[in-house]
Amino acid sequence: MSKSLQLDSQGRLRHFLSIEGLNRPLLTEILDTAERFTQVGNQSAKKVPLLRGKTIANLFFEPSTRTRTTFDLAEKRLSADVLNININNSATTKGETLLDTLQNLTAMQIDMFVVRHSASGAAHFIAQHVPGGVSVINAGDGRHAHPTQAMLDMFTIRKYKEDFTRLRVAIVGDVMHSRVARSQIHALNMLGCPEVRVIAPKTLCPSHVENLGVHFTHNMEEGLEGVDVVIMLRLQNERMRGANLPSKDEFFRFYGLTESRLQCAATDAIIMHPGPMNRGVEIESSVADSQHSVILQQVTNGIAVRMAVLSMAMQHNSGER
Amino acid sequence: MSKSLQLDSQGRLRHFLSIEGLNRPLLTEILDTAERFTQVGNQSAKKVPLLRGKTIANLFFEPSTRTRTTFDLAEKRLSADVLNININNSATTKGETLLDTLQNLTAMQIDMFVVRHSASGAAHFIAQHVPGGVSVINAGDGRHAHPTQAMLDMFTIRKYKEDFTRLRVAIVGDVMHSRVARSQIHALNMLGCPEVRVIAPKTLCPSHVENLGVHFTHNMEEGLEGVDVVIMLRLQNERMRGANLPSKDEFFRFYGLTESRLQCAATDAIIMHPGPMNRGVEIESSVADSQHSVILQQVTNGIAVRMAVLSMAMQHNSGER
Amino acid sequence: MSKSLQLDSQGRLRHFLSIEGLNRPLLTEILDTAERFTQVGNQSAKKVPLLRGKTIANLFFEPSTRTRTTFDLAEKRLSADVLNININNSATTKGETLLDTLQNLTAMQIDMFVVRHSASGAAHFIAQHVPGGVSVINAGDGRHAHPTQAMLDMFTIRKYKEDFTRLRVAIVGDVMHSRVARSQIHALNMLGCPEVRVIAPKTLCPSHVENLGVHFTHNMEEGLEGVDVVIMLRLQNERMRGANLPSKDEFFRFYGLTESRLQCAATDAIIMHPGPMNRGVEIESSVADSQHSVILQQVTNGIAVRMAVLSMAMQHNSGER
Repeated sequence: MSKSLQLDSQGRLRHFLSIEGLNRPLLTEILDTAERFTQVGNQSAKKVPLLRGKTIANLFFEPSTRTRTTFDLAEKRLSADVLNININNSATTKGETLLDTLQNLTAMQIDMFVVRHSASGAAHFIAQHVPGGVSVINAGDGRHAHPTQAMLDMFTIRKYKEDFTRLRVAIVGDVMHSRVARSQIHALNMLGCPEVRVIAPKTLCPSHVENLGVHFTHNMEEGLEGVDVVIMLRLQNERMRGANLPSKDEFFRFYGLTESRLQCAATDAIIMHPGPMNRGVEIESSVADSQHSVILQQVTNGIAVRMAVLSMAMQHNSGER
Repeated sequence: MSKSLQLDSQGRLRHFLSIEGLNRPLLTEILDTAERFTQVGNQSAKKVPLLRGKTIANLFFEPSTRTRTTFDLAEKRLSADVLNININNSATTKGETLLDTLQNLTAMQIDMFVVRHSASGAAHFIAQHVPGGVSVINAGDGRHAHPTQAMLDMFTIRKYKEDFTRLRVAIVGDVMHSRVARSQIHALNMLGCPEVRVIAPKTLCPSHVENLGVHFTHNMEEGLEGVDVVIMLRLQNERMRGANLPSKDEFFRFYGLTESRLQCAATDAIIMHPGPMNRGVEIESSVADSQHSVILQQVTNGIAVRMAVLSMAMQHNSGER
Repeated sequence: MSKSLQLDSQGRLRHFLSIEGLNRPLLTEILDTAERFTQVGNQSAKKVPLLRGKTIANLFFEPSTRTRTTFDLAEKRLSADVLNININNSATTKGETLLDTLQNLTAMQIDMFVVRHSASGAAHFIAQHVPGGVSVINAGDGRHAHPTQAMLDMFTIRKYKEDFTRLRVAIVGDVMHSRVARSQIHALNMLGCPEVRVIAPKTLCPSHVENLGVHFTHNMEEGLEGVDVVIMLRLQNERMRGANLPSKDEFFRFYGLTESRLQCAATDAIIMHPGPMNRGVEIESSVADSQHSVILQQVTNGIAVRMAVLSMAMQHNSGER
């Protein structure tokens, strides 16, 4: 179902909602296209006229700084006209349904929606209800997916490690609530990564996680043994108050990425984090700032990857119309 | 007074504050200009360089999504530089008067103000105090006027019905508090519509409404009899709590536009609503989504009509300077 | 320290953090460059392509209307891409440190930061931590400095008075808490103004103010005697509640600029105020609107001066990269 929704009849990207339903050649096309867009960020004038006269609406039903700002920059560097709509302050508070709000926005001839929502499936729902020429990009929906984050992570891994088919990758932390982890696991599998490990306390690991094609361990040292890539997840403050976790200190004691634990990984391992980091909770401050860390490169790469996804989906539209 | 304020010595549009004070040739010029701008929305690159280097400030003293967003899009599609200023959060909270705020903004060499305010007459007041080369567009002031909404409604009616001089139009709902209804009535009269009916409970109808040149009835079936156009008004939630209205259910029972009531109208009647709709209060959901409904076309047309008004007022200015 | 931070090895402007550390030729270069940019504001199309493809982030940790809006306009008139980031609503609330927030923003390849912060020294701190090619403009930090405000004041003075070396200038009001006054005093001294007087109640005057090269008096009539320029400071509402000041009325009685007190100044004296004004507190309403007042010209000039500072700092960067 996702497949037919995300791709058009010729297999090109129409909506970008989740990694599931895509395929390895398409993911590779996104990475290759992003590679070309990294040049734009290094130019003196960081702007290309690709999406001139196109209107992109960033629909954020959930607050976000990093993701919204990098989408905003990606859109402006592609020369699109950008509408930032914070839906909490908008017509839905006047009793209008989501579908009415959406139909009104599409009546404004908006070409593309970038959607963040706290409900899993929201981006799919919106994609099912927009007219033919309009694309939807998922910027994070509930616990379900955050596919542009996963692709910027894949881009960063490929930069440093080149060949996915020989990598060992560990994903550490609150996998249970993480849309980022879900999308990363699907992307790593699709790109041929032979060994993905999930390291988490049992209370923060989804049951039957092995069905996703990963190895689970609750022991940090064991999980980090020999890995080439360590992906730390953000521990959500609001969830730390819940019953699943005793305290920040205790989390750091068992699952914090420290210099000494990093010794278990390969000597040239890279460390990633989607941000914002909680220093001293998920990660020791010196590790976050070490030579192994590629956390800021992830941010830079995020703009190029988002430019790639936006321009590929818009290309489809221009063809359709 | 409005006339000399809104038009320059050659009868061209300088400010756009209310339908009153304008004339039929000017309204027709707006509709014809908007007709040309609808092409821009259908182009692959929805942008014309008409207002390049002009600065337009959207001064919203009252929250709004639809109106502000369509003005914003209209301005960007004309290539203007756009300032969105939410006056609640601004210097007026530091004890500065409205006039000081306005003088400061005009000192920034802003070319045009789009103003929404909860006080009737606010746009007129501002128009009286800006320098010679600056235009003011009323985006809704208190219960007084919402002229761009009325013009997008006229544009939509003309699209489907062509000749105003043979139309029967019904306006249904809370006419008392509606700036939209006031502007619609003036526009319909000015464009030669021979029969405008107001359908409302007596408590929501202004006294002496017949002086506006309309027929009043409190009976829905009677009012809808044979009309070509049904314009539903939005029932403001905050007013439904007041003494004028018993309940939403009771309003719907007597004044909701249902499929069965729609039978009274002409078979090719069109249904309009300024949005956002309260489904099940003003209008039955199936009617809102029926073939008769042109509610989403109103939204699309709103952008072209606002582009027309903005460019006509700016043209005046360029001539003046 | 400020000097080496603000200027590059060839003495060109890299960051603009405070007047201290600069020199008279550089201030004059800013004023001359701004002079050329005043033309842009008078053109029909108020736009030049100087900063096309550059990204400028306005980082406002403290609310502001006038300063943020004029920076925003200056940036758009230079054709830059503008990011407005209200840091109160952003990732710092998710527990991220200022330095992490900053590193993330620089990873987004932003070319320039315009920073307002309630802490003195914040802009310096940020300037010390951005990469080589990035510039920082101080838009007001705590009680420390507001150098673009001081430069637009100097620009305005030069417009009316031409020669700084023969001027008598009075700065009136809450000098103690005023970053504006500090920057004005340094700029006036640097440009060769022979006599700067500070007029304030003792409780609102910093101790040892004479060390800044000014004359202090607590007597308004005495201080205004024969001055060519009167600069009124804004009395912060929040500080009027403190112990330093009995009441607004009492302040006005002793330090309000009235028509009768203005008689003490030179007959062609000009009156300035950084805004927003408290009419009837710092200044009599008729004086604010009199022929002597150049308060609105200050606002207009602020855009040209900010365009000058932004383009000069960006020129340095382009050279570096």
